[in-house]
Amino acid sequence: ELRQQENYFSRGTLDRLSGKRTDKAWLEAKQTEPDTVYLLFSNLSPMVSSSQDGDTIEGETKLCRFTYEAVKDLVQKPATVLIFLGVEKTTKPTTSSSSSSSQTEVGLREPPAWFAFSSDEDAAELLKRCREKNCSFPKIPNRDLLKLSEEEAGVVAQARSVLAWHSRYSFCPTCGSSTKLEDGGYKRSCLKSDCRSLQGVHNTCYPRVDPVVIMLVIHPDGNQCLLGRKRNFPVGMFSCLAGFIEPGETIEEAVRREVEEESGVKVGLVQYVSCQPWPMPSNLMIGCLAIAVSTDIRVDENEIEEARWFPRQQVIDSLFRGVCPTFTVPPRQTIAHQLIRHWIGMYSNL
Amino acid sequence: ELRQQENYFSRGTLDRLSGKRTDKAWLEAKQTEPDTVYLLFSNLSPMVSSSQDGDTIEGETKLCRFTYEAVKDLVQKPATVLIFLGVEKTTKPTTSSSSSSSQTEVGLREPPAWFAFSSDEDAAELLKRCREKNCSFPKIPNRDLLKLSEEEAGVVAQARSVLAWHSRYSFCPTCGSSTKLEDGGYKRSCLKSDCRSLQGVHNTCYPRVDPVVIMLVIHPDGNQCLLGRKRNFPVGMFSCLAGFIEPGETIEEAVRREVEEESGVKVGLVQYVSCQPWPMPSNLMIGCLAIAVSTDIRVDENEIEEARWFPRQQVIDSLFRGVCPTFTVPPRQTIAHQLIRHWIGMYSNL
Ligand SMILES: Nc1ncnc2c1ncn2[C@@H]1O[C@H](COP(=O)(O)O)[C@@H](O)[C@H]1O
Ligand SMILES: Nc1ncnc2c1ncn2[C@@H]1O[C@H](COP(=O)(O)O)[C@@H](O)[C@H]1O
Ligand SMILES: [Mg+2]
Ligand SMILES: [Mg+2]
Ligand SMILES: [Mg+2]
Ligand SMILES: [Mg+2]
Ligand SMILES: [Mg+2]
Ligand SMILES: [Mg+2]
Ligand SMILES: [Zn+2]
Ligand SMILES: [Zn+2]
Repeated sequence: ELRQQENYFSRGTLDRLSGKRTDKAWLEAKQTEPDTVYLLFSNLSPMVSSSQDGDTIEGETKLCRFTYEAVKDLVQKPATVLIFLGVEKTTKPTTSSSSSSSQTEVGLREPPAWFAFSSDEDAAELLKRCREKNCSFPKIPNRDLLKLSEEEAGVVAQARSVLAWHSRYSFCPTCGSSTKLEDGGYKRSCLKSDCRSLQGVHNTCYPRVDPVVIMLVIHPDGNQCLLGRKRNFPVGMFSCLAGFIEPGETIEEAVRREVEEESGVKVGLVQYVSCQPWPMPSNLMIGCLAIAVSTDIRVDENEIEEARWFPRQQVIDSLFRGVCPTFTVPPRQTIAHQLIRHWIGMYSNL
Repeated sequence: ELRQQENYFSRGTLDRLSGKRTDKAWLEAKQTEPDTVYLLFSNLSPMVSSSQDGDTIEGETKLCRFTYEAVKDLVQKPATVLIFLGVEKTTKPTTSSSSSSSQTEVGLREPPAWFAFSSDEDAAELLKRCREKNCSFPKIPNRDLLKLSEEEAGVVAQARSVLAWHSRYSFCPTCGSSTKLEDGGYKRSCLKSDCRSLQGVHNTCYPRVDPVVIMLVIHPDGNQCLLGRKRNFPVGMFSCLAGFIEPGETIEEAVRREVEEESGVKVGLVQYVSCQPWPMPSNLMIGCLAIAVSTDIRVDENEIEEARWFPRQQVIDSLFRGVCPTFTVPPRQTIAHQLIRHWIGMYSNL
């Protein structure tokens, strides 16, 4: 029905039912239901099973799904971090997310709930719990988490970001005390009863999302785009420039500042295109097109190894695997790739 | 030159020169220069002076600006949090923000630098330091910080967000130890030498920015918009719905989720309009128009007291102070106001 661009990691497969996070009884009942799905994370990687052949097919990697019975010993350990992810979206008109208990009362079947949890047990031992073939905890999230289906990628984006927050934010940043987990995994509260963070609402208690701008800069002639490479990129790969939005900055100002910092190029008009959650650990990549008003390049060598203007035809060759492309772009699961494609596609209607 | 919408708190008055944040010698030299500007904060409010009459004129409130000589005793206290804000933007073509030391060498005058710092000394004592009339530390930031000029509002957005981060995040969230301030106030590093947060790059060390969606929902008939009020709003005021973007979510998904949670209305197409830094303490308000695909309203009473569809003409009466408006909207300094105006203005070209 909707015709908006959807990036990898963006699909909202689950209804988060945030209103249920504070309903302890409901959450506890859901935990033990037979159709409830558990995802098991070790060291911020989900357990997945892989088909043996090929490594570029979408959906080639699948999440291992556990029942309560299969993991209850792990889930019940006091140190386990358990997150309520939501329930499967139904296609029929649903009731409001905040008050759907009447549904249960009249005996309608509720859709399955999903949880994610992280375990610090030995990874090899954990893998023995699954009967699927080729189970593993992927080692390089940036690469290995790009092989899921769109549906599962969206769930992993949510689960990994929240689990990463718990792993880095277990102490109260305001007073240094320990904190306790609440609200189905979406809140941490300080255990020191007179801590300032408990008076009023403070962001210290909630998961962190870091907004990042990522932009394709277009040459004033309209026929070239600016791409750069970091030192640790694969040989020959170039991508869009990107950077964290700073406090007190708009999206558009951040685009201008980061482009000038990293490449020396000045930008005028900025246009938002689409965005992508990037759970490494919890970025929100805000994708823009930006029109350059200067063209001289001087890279910030701390961040960028090289930046160049690439003519449209070279970009087309690279995207559509010309015989001998001058350079490569990141894979299609990245918003950088999609921004580049978007620019190339903009002219197809002219 | 640029014709993009600019919201209050959005003007980038200063060049942040982020490349200089790690240049201790440069920062120290700048601190003592006679034209360097210091802004003094107490309890996250900047010292301002006000003209006595009227209270709705833009720029009626002005930041008190101090020289190094006037505040060096405060600045030098070990507990003082000092932030480098940037240098005044010059209109002539500037050199790259990361390496402009050559400018100094050839004797060109560098533009004045700005710093902000917070003091926990007695507020009344601090106020005695200023020779301006009617000095104060505003008590209600949401209201009182809306009376600055556009230029000063942009600076306050940056300074207040970063200072608020320091006041809430002085302990390492990963291990609970104390931290030290670095990089001109844009970084905090854990003092425990074997802390995980010191291995690799972690967001725990950097200021937090919380992305929030704020949206004007348009009725499927195109002729009404959905506005709601929280219990603590002034009598008769209605505004756009809004909510924090969650981990693993896009802007567009967050709009759909928050609108359905708070009002029960389902949204289809979402279109980004403009954004606004909101330094209470460090939100990035991402403003969107959203097209409803259902119309029944059921409010989440925890968050919203009432939500209603308002016909275009009632909205016009309210915006342009009709004789007896049915309701009021937030002031023009808010992105909610600007989104509503944007919707009304969209039709002026038809
Ligand atoms: N939230 C954040 N998470 C990680 N790094 C950050 C963050 N904010 C600022 N940085 C710094 O920004 C650098 C990356 O630069 P950029 O992405 O261009 O802004 C990192 O190496 C950090 O020094
Ligand atoms: N970063 C955050 N800062 C403050 N409150 C948050 C944050 N994230 C989630 N919340 C919660 O969201 C509520 C406001 O709801 P909403 O703005 O509609 O998302 C607050 O009362 C908090 O319970
Ligand atoms: Mg950068
Ligand atoms: Mg940066
Ligand atoms: Mg960067
Ligand atoms: Mg809400
Ligand atoms: Mg919310
Ligand atoms: Mg809200
Ligand atoms: Zn605390
Ligand atoms: Zn630490």
